[in-house]
Amino acid sequence: MTIETLSEQKCFGGIQGVYRHQSSSTGTDMEFAVFQPAEAAKKPLPVLVFLSGLTCTWENFTTKAGAQRYAAEHGVIVVAPDTSPRGEGVADDQAYDLGKGAGFYLNATEDPWAKHYRMEDYVVKELPAVLANNFPVDLDRMGITGHSMGGHGALTLAIKNPDLFKTLSAFAPIVSPANCPWGQKAFNNYLGDNIATWGQNDASALVETFGWSGDILIDQGASDTFLETELLPDVFVRACERKSVALTLRMQEGYDHSYYFIASFIEDHIAWHAKRLKA
Amino acid sequence: MTIETLSEQKCFGGIQGVYRHQSSSTGTDMEFAVFQPAEAAKKPLPVLVFLSGLTCTWENFTTKAGAQRYAAEHGVIVVAPDTSPRGEGVADDQAYDLGKGAGFYLNATEDPWAKHYRMEDYVVKELPAVLANNFPVDLDRMGITGHSMGGHGALTLAIKNPDLFKTLSAFAPIVSPANCPWGQKAFNNYLGDNIATWGQNDASALVETFGWSGDILIDQGASDTFLETELLPDVFVRACERKSVALTLRMQEGYDHSYYFIASFIEDHIAWHAKRLKA
Repeated sequence: MTIETLSEQKCFGGIQGVYRHQSSSTGTDMEFAVFQPAEAAKKPLPVLVFLSGLTCTWENFTTKAGAQRYAAEHGVIVVAPDTSPRGEGVADDQAYDLGKGAGFYLNATEDPWAKHYRMEDYVVKELPAVLANNFPVDLDRMGITGHSMGGHGALTLAIKNPDLFKTLSAFAPIVSPANCPWGQKAFNNYLGDNIATWGQNDASALVETFGWSGDILIDQGASDTFLETELLPDVFVRACERKSVALTLRMQEGYDHSYYFIASFIEDHIAWHAKRLKA
Repeated sequence: MTIETLSEQKCFGGIQGVYRHQSSSTGTDMEFAVFQPAEAAKKPLPVLVFLSGLTCTWENFTTKAGAQRYAAEHGVIVVAPDTSPRGEGVADDQAYDLGKGAGFYLNATEDPWAKHYRMEDYVVKELPAVLANNFPVDLDRMGITGHSMGGHGALTLAIKNPDLFKTLSAFAPIVSPANCPWGQKAFNNYLGDNIATWGQNDASALVETFGWSGDILIDQGASDTFLETELLPDVFVRACERKSVALTLRMQEGYDHSYYFIASFIEDHIAWHAKRLKA
């Protein structure tokens, strides 16, 4: 399980790196970014995984969110994987919300997607092993967050794997893909019309099944143009209420769906995860 | 002098906007970005102009430097103009270091550049007037900074216009374009072989002529690949010493020429300008 270093650059006293490896999950090369604070040279540190939204790679979050400052302050390694398999042989669609850049962090069961679109396996099984073998990570203290489609990924993968991801937050997540156009399109293609499998990839359905023993932080821009069509935070609020899950949903007045929104609140999320992972 | 709003997005409690207007200096449309902290709604604020480097537009700094947080904290309006005129009728070159994206913040005298490449007039004369007419700026408290080619622009334009730009700093600036390949190529094209005009656009020559009554802060990555060929900070250090100009050059170990370097130190620069502009 060797990885190739594409770049390493000093940032806020630490190292912002980009790496590539051959993924057994997706059957493709995969790239991911890792920020290591300076103190990672001395001891293993907690990890926060950030899952990005539609059309993104590791690059959007890594260059635009300004997370490195807070990761350096709080002593947290931040990992940003890609949003889908990529490469010449990988099935794709011209739409921005299907195919490359739109993996939805699930294991596809339908052709032509099933062969490479196995992002759930990638994030839950393979990426942690790659991190453990190559970086000073303390995987017993790993949290997860994400934006939009990546917020969906963070919520679903954590709720299904609470032993792996100890802390959970999200920015403007798709909380019920089974009930919004983005998610229905993706699920119809990736999972087919067997609706029973949809619930295994829908955060609001999953939290009603499994609950969540910790607390959850969600920031949502109140001026987000996708709020009422795709994101539907109230669906998740009600599901958490029914299961007595401690959800804090912060509606942020005037903020939209962009990285300016993420940048404005990433400090809070990193501090929030660090406090819990280091408790 | 009307301007068109291309976007306005909430960020760190303020507004990150992008605007377009017809420029009389360049004879083209010009775009620029402005971050207004929340308190700009109540009173005029000091201004910091950031000039970007080769290949950039307003977007690189605005999305990657993380300046909004510090501008909000210190109550400073931050303005990021483009690096050259653009448009179909504008002379260009296939190289990244000449033509569009490489205006060098001077007034070109040679064809085919002289018609549109008047970035010195644009930044010194037109942009301040546009700001005064459209934003709550206190132009009596305006500072300037920039990166690489934009550091050259900040140094030259401030030294020539100390009544306009009261404070001055730079990131990895080209301090003596007359003596490095980037600058020589640009000056040969834009200014021709009349070397007498080169000194009017060379920070190290200018500071020996005009001096600088305040102090100057420069951050320079010690691992910057352009350090010894293009940037040559020692030339400016010696010129400042000869004129007893209070220059602080901080060589930042391990940092390169990228926005990860700028992001790591932009807080220091904004705090530095704010302290002096508000004194």
